[in-house]
Amino acid sequence: MRARVTVMLKDGVLDPQGEAIRHALGALGFEGVEGVRQGKVIELDLADGTPEGAVDAMCRRLLANTVIESYRIEVA
Amino acid sequence: MRARVTVMLKDGVLDPQGEAIRHALGALGFEGVEGVRQGKVIELDLADGTPEGAVDAMCRRLLANTVIESYRIEVA
Repeated sequence: MRARVTVMLKDGVLDPQGEAIRHALGALGFEGVEGVRQGKVIELDLADGTPEGAVDAMCRRLLANTVIESYRIEVA
Repeated sequence: MRARVTVMLKDGVLDPQGEAIRHALGALGFEGVEGVRQGKVIELDLADGTPEGAVDAMCRRLLANTVIESYRIEVA
């Protein structure tokens, strides 16, 4: 069983990495880049039968800082 | 127009961040975590009409190190 967790900074939280990418793309000549946000993706290989609730607990306890980050779980 | 780029280390490339997460999850008592890979996700807000080829060029020139990383583009 495989789960993918995507962690992004919440809207309104300053994202200096994304801003640096936006600036660099402009400097490279790419036009029309209006905004960039960077986040993390974490792919977990889990033993079969691991409940999805366990992945949610992993996010809250370790993978995401829920004060400033939101997360999304996809199970495949 | 919005594009999401997911950048992961290629299979076989050592992923110390993922390994640290796997170890930390085990230390927190989560069982059945067999492997963890960490990557980046970059969300781009693009002017309408930006060709998908431009996003591919951004990946090759800036967003991914194609020697050790693979990338995937989703356009929404």
